[in-house]
Amino acid sequence: MTEAMQFASDNWAGVPDAVAQALSAAAAGAVPAYGDDDGTAAVSERIAALFGCPVSVFYVATGSSANALSLSALVPPGGVAFAHEGAHVQSDECNAPLFLSPGLRILSLPGAAGKLSAGGLDAALERFGPPVVHHGRAAAVTLTNATELGTVYGPDEVAAIGRVVHGRGLKLHMDGARLANALAATGCSPAQMTWQAGVDALSFGLTKTGGWCAEAVVLFGETGAADFPYLRKRAGHLISKSRFVSAQFAALLADDLWLRLAAHANAMAQRLHAGLAALPGVSFDFAPQANALFPAVPKAMAARLSAAGAAFYEWPDAGFAEPAGPDRVRLRLVASFATAAPDVDRFLAVAAG
Amino acid sequence: MTEAMQFASDNWAGVPDAVAQALSAAAAGAVPAYGDDDGTAAVSERIAALFGCPVSVFYVATGSSANALSLSALVPPGGVAFAHEGAHVQSDECNAPLFLSPGLRILSLPGAAGKLSAGGLDAALERFGPPVVHHGRAAAVTLTNATELGTVYGPDEVAAIGRVVHGRGLKLHMDGARLANALAATGCSPAQMTWQAGVDALSFGLTKTGGWCAEAVVLFGETGAADFPYLRKRAGHLISKSRFVSAQFAALLADDLWLRLAAHANAMAQRLHAGLAALPGVSFDFAPQANALFPAVPKAMAARLSAAGAAFYEWPDAGFAEPAGPDRVRLRLVASFATAAPDVDRFLAVAAG
Amino acid sequence: MTEAMQFASDNWAGVPDAVAQALSAAAAGAVPAYGDDDGTAAVSERIAALFGCPVSVFYVATGSSANALSLSALVPPGGVAFAHEGAHVQSDECNAPLFLSPGLRILSLPGAAGKLSAGGLDAALERFGPPVVHHGRAAAVTLTNATELGTVYGPDEVAAIGRVVHGRGLKLHMDGARLANALAATGCSPAQMTWQAGVDALSFGLTKTGGWCAEAVVLFGETGAADFPYLRKRAGHLISKSRFVSAQFAALLADDLWLRLAAHANAMAQRLHAGLAALPGVSFDFAPQANALFPAVPKAMAARLSAAGAAFYEWPDAGFAEPAGPDRVRLRLVASFATAAPDVDRFLAVAAG
Amino acid sequence: MTEAMQFASDNWAGVPDAVAQALSAAAAGAVPAYGDDDGTAAVSERIAALFGCPVSVFYVATGSSANALSLSALVPPGGVAFAHEGAHVQSDECNAPLFLSPGLRILSLPGAAGKLSAGGLDAALERFGPPVVHHGRAAAVTLTNATELGTVYGPDEVAAIGRVVHGRGLKLHMDGARLANALAATGCSPAQMTWQAGVDALSFGLTKTGGWCAEAVVLFGETGAADFPYLRKRAGHLISKSRFVSAQFAALLADDLWLRLAAHANAMAQRLHAGLAALPGVSFDFAPQANALFPAVPKAMAARLSAAGAAFYEWPDAGFAEPAGPDRVRLRLVASFATAAPDVDRFLAVAAG
Repeated sequence: MTEAMQFASDNWAGVPDAVAQALSAAAAGAVPAYGDDDGTAAVSERIAALFGCPVSVFYVATGSSANALSLSALVPPGGVAFAHEGAHVQSDECNAPLFLSPGLRILSLPGAAGKLSAGGLDAALERFGPPVVHHGRAAAVTLTNATELGTVYGPDEVAAIGRVVHGRGLKLHMDGARLANALAATGCSPAQMTWQAGVDALSFGLTKTGGWCAEAVVLFGETGAADFPYLRKRAGHLISKSRFVSAQFAALLADDLWLRLAAHANAMAQRLHAGLAALPGVSFDFAPQANALFPAVPKAMAARLSAAGAAFYEWPDAGFAEPAGPDRVRLRLVASFATAAPDVDRFLAVAAG
Repeated sequence: MTEAMQFASDNWAGVPDAVAQALSAAAAGAVPAYGDDDGTAAVSERIAALFGCPVSVFYVATGSSANALSLSALVPPGGVAFAHEGAHVQSDECNAPLFLSPGLRILSLPGAAGKLSAGGLDAALERFGPPVVHHGRAAAVTLTNATELGTVYGPDEVAAIGRVVHGRGLKLHMDGARLANALAATGCSPAQMTWQAGVDALSFGLTKTGGWCAEAVVLFGETGAADFPYLRKRAGHLISKSRFVSAQFAALLADDLWLRLAAHANAMAQRLHAGLAALPGVSFDFAPQANALFPAVPKAMAARLSAAGAAFYEWPDAGFAEPAGPDRVRLRLVASFATAAPDVDRFLAVAAG
Repeated sequence: MTEAMQFASDNWAGVPDAVAQALSAAAAGAVPAYGDDDGTAAVSERIAALFGCPVSVFYVATGSSANALSLSALVPPGGVAFAHEGAHVQSDECNAPLFLSPGLRILSLPGAAGKLSAGGLDAALERFGPPVVHHGRAAAVTLTNATELGTVYGPDEVAAIGRVVHGRGLKLHMDGARLANALAATGCSPAQMTWQAGVDALSFGLTKTGGWCAEAVVLFGETGAADFPYLRKRAGHLISKSRFVSAQFAALLADDLWLRLAAHANAMAQRLHAGLAALPGVSFDFAPQANALFPAVPKAMAARLSAAGAAFYEWPDAGFAEPAGPDRVRLRLVASFATAAPDVDRFLAVAAG
Repeated sequence: MTEAMQFASDNWAGVPDAVAQALSAAAAGAVPAYGDDDGTAAVSERIAALFGCPVSVFYVATGSSANALSLSALVPPGGVAFAHEGAHVQSDECNAPLFLSPGLRILSLPGAAGKLSAGGLDAALERFGPPVVHHGRAAAVTLTNATELGTVYGPDEVAAIGRVVHGRGLKLHMDGARLANALAATGCSPAQMTWQAGVDALSFGLTKTGGWCAEAVVLFGETGAADFPYLRKRAGHLISKSRFVSAQFAALLADDLWLRLAAHANAMAQRLHAGLAALPGVSFDFAPQANALFPAVPKAMAARLSAAGAAFYEWPDAGFAEPAGPDRVRLRLVASFATAAPDVDRFLAVAAG
């Protein structure tokens, strides 16, 4: 059965029971729409408490729109944002950030293991130079944590980047589609990882963690907060029956469920990594820190796994230091809250041949 | 208890048990994301069968985005769309259709009881004239069925408009956020109300009918179909865990549940209308055909209802033939699948004083 | 010879000798591009002196872009502007204001003789209501002076509108594609007609007055000034060899040439009006105040004029109180700096039959 | 006198006498506006003859808008264009191509001496992969000829790129802001350099060559031609008194004036190069082929030149193989039609110390 070895994506998973039950419990009764309900207010308060600071919280429909609308809230006309060349905002959102923030450009920066470095960023901003009408004005930096490559910025790394960003008068956005995995990996607090490290706007995504459709933009300061309700609505992203998003957030944030789900996913990725790393012909550029790993494996191994019903994607070599080479193929394996240890073990057994 | 006299909006209602159960049933297991799952394919087939013709079906996050992206699929650069002056696309979407379809203009047309007339539309298109680079090119007409004012276009009316629209080489869009109510009111088939009457693109909304978040764009022809996946994704409207939208559609379309829910809502609106019309000082411009009604009532009556815990909106007089006048106020009352007859009767009893 | 009875448009005229000579004089030598030349700085100072207040001046390529970029500088996300239903921004710019100011909506207001009234505007803004995410936020009013219909707002009328606009926290834009004609007609100062009456942004157009391509946006306050260089450049409207625009402005503003040219055009329109008004079967809704007039004339007269080589446009009846009726046709006749009295007299002689 | 050693930019030059005279000659008389005049039709015919094929010609206000609107005509929703990382569309247009073509992304490609290579492009397109809703669809390639770095693609190089582009179903745009310099450098025909080599859309710029404001988009096929009038007008780029643009084009294209002006500018660049290359401490990555050169020179030399009144820009080292190093600085020197040999020689004398 395919599902037993399901490592294609964390958004191929459904939701845990707690979320399903919360949604069912929210089915009855009349409550105001468009975010004016008590449940949505309660989630906002919960998020403020979680981060330990005043926040503005705005649900949106997708992670792409969370990123795009965050940038549109931070970037003025003629603004330029900077992102890792492999960032989701660059490569996987059909240019939504450019479309929803008209006239935005996002410059790509290299960086090992899917991460920006503070030094590399600073040099790039120095090269870009001060605001000029021709090349535009550097306005924001966006980083992804956990990254597309399963690596994680620690709070010190984010803070170092935050100092560069604010030192130059820019704003910092974090794509937190897998924030839970980053927090689970580092053990630091949401506050340490975000506003205390200089993050101005966060795409706070819980869909991949274990929601159906649970995405919010969290603004930590004034910038963009007054405009955001209009930015969201004019993009068609104000969900009418917002109570159902609130139900998901409430269920996932209660008792740190979101962090426990992410810790499980991370652990399953570690288990996969440990098992694969021991196999001949398998190599990694770097160990996974979150819930995704990218082994280069013998082509025969990949074929054997597919034949046995495992689900995963082959992945381009770009962005990795050591190429897979002609006889191997690079895979992306993603664990989720729903991944079970026996699934991992069976996958490893097939891989071992 | 407030909920007992809840007539504020049909999107203040939750979901019926069948939908809640379908969502719970979809919680487990791994399925492909972004619409590549079997459930989504099955819903597309179900919708094709429902309309009796080939269709392209695209889930989107909201009714606003359904309308906006439909228009962006139908309208070329320099294009102008035409809508009733009270249409949701004009007045209630924070300009989302103009933002998501860059450069679109929507011209407002008057029309009694919230409806465009074929004759009035034809005259307006004649006045607008042929494509000219200065005023742009007439490209699409959008109508709402059921309308914002609780009235309904019958299939003959849509067809008359469709003939005008296609006779001039334009495209026809229907905002079907309350299509179920229109079908329940008229008894005609989905096909008769849409493509057989000339509709090229439909915003097929089931959220107000009884979903959480169940909106789709249905294209009946080639126009825009190849571009739509990109139009949707670049607007951030491709939902990742699409199976949960499919679960709602599947539950609502099974055994005509959607039509039965809408018929119930319509009946509750009729019950309200019958009761209110008998009260002194209450008048209607027109009888409700769908699930909303707009009585002008004595201010004292409105105050009495509010004091008793009834929920409703006061509504502007614009668009109604007979003004409420200084001593009365116009109300909007909306029934939903969740409205119960005793709620209506209690409301009427309070109204009677 | 057609040119002898040329009343099609003031942009069918070329330029007066002074402008042609100024352009020739600017041909030689090297000067910085993109507005960094001394000549452009001098024009900015000249415009500041003309208006008697600090200003920000930005050349743009066309009147459409002047209007569109002015609005984009004044209107925040979700903003709605208000304009006369016959305004150029609504009907003649292929939606450029909506495209260059993404997400902008412009609501149409009626008004006699092509003009908004302060009272009508105030009522419309009251009806529109306070900022709400659904209908958006009223942000700006744009009026055209002289209007599309050859009428003129006096400074008191602008000031009355300005009080309504600012009393509600909105911004006021004036489309001054024919500002010179309005000033010549009223005799008031540029300051009285603009910032002293509450205008925040002016499309200061001298092309129709007697330039080749001489359009500027003049901002009277801080709003939008810091963003404007970027708004302009990202729309492709930063002209490289700006000295040639400066040469036109300098020549036209020197010794009040622009006002003298406009006074001449206005006088020619008056001469046409006086002559036509005396002819049987000719009627006007209102007398011309600027350089355009809109007589309803017998169809035979129109045919006679065309046959004799006169150039003019037939014009829609919409916006006029008295319809032309079946046997007559409404014409638009526009005089320019290049219109000569004998041309007018010959036209009148042919019209008289 | 500064102007005597003026190498800052070719758009710091004015216009040659022939252009000034043509503009003066166009000053009188009435002709239709918005491109409907005989002179504009004649220029279109002249351009068709020049290229030896049917073309659609559209004047626009600036080179930035020529590039941006060309791309908007070639790229569908979700489309991605590819350009050299140093291309003007990427670095010098304040994101105008992204703004005027909403949702466009332009991917940067490296390439020696400011040029794309056919092989590098093909590999990049292969890496990008087929259309997918997440990363979008590769749609167009844009190259600049002559390049920003004063190098030139020969017709064979363009044709090789054209084969890659069309072999993958994409469209090819050429930014020809300095097309004249490229043609003068290679001696090939306009046809060989453009449509015969696979170019679908050309930004045909004559402003830098010797116009005031003389930019056109030339489309060689059907793609985008029907939409272009609307794309242009909605961006505010339809110039009203188009006769003045036509006068410039007519004067410059007559008797190959444009090519002679460009040949002169190229020759002055060669003269500069020959002189500078002989000086100690001066080096070039590559010899100039068009009218710009980028020597790395001792800082003392640069200071001496500035002190003597020479005008030029210091230029970033990025994009050059050999860095200037700590004691030197890279300069950009641009010659124009107005550069005189004695200016060059004086510059060289000062440089020699």
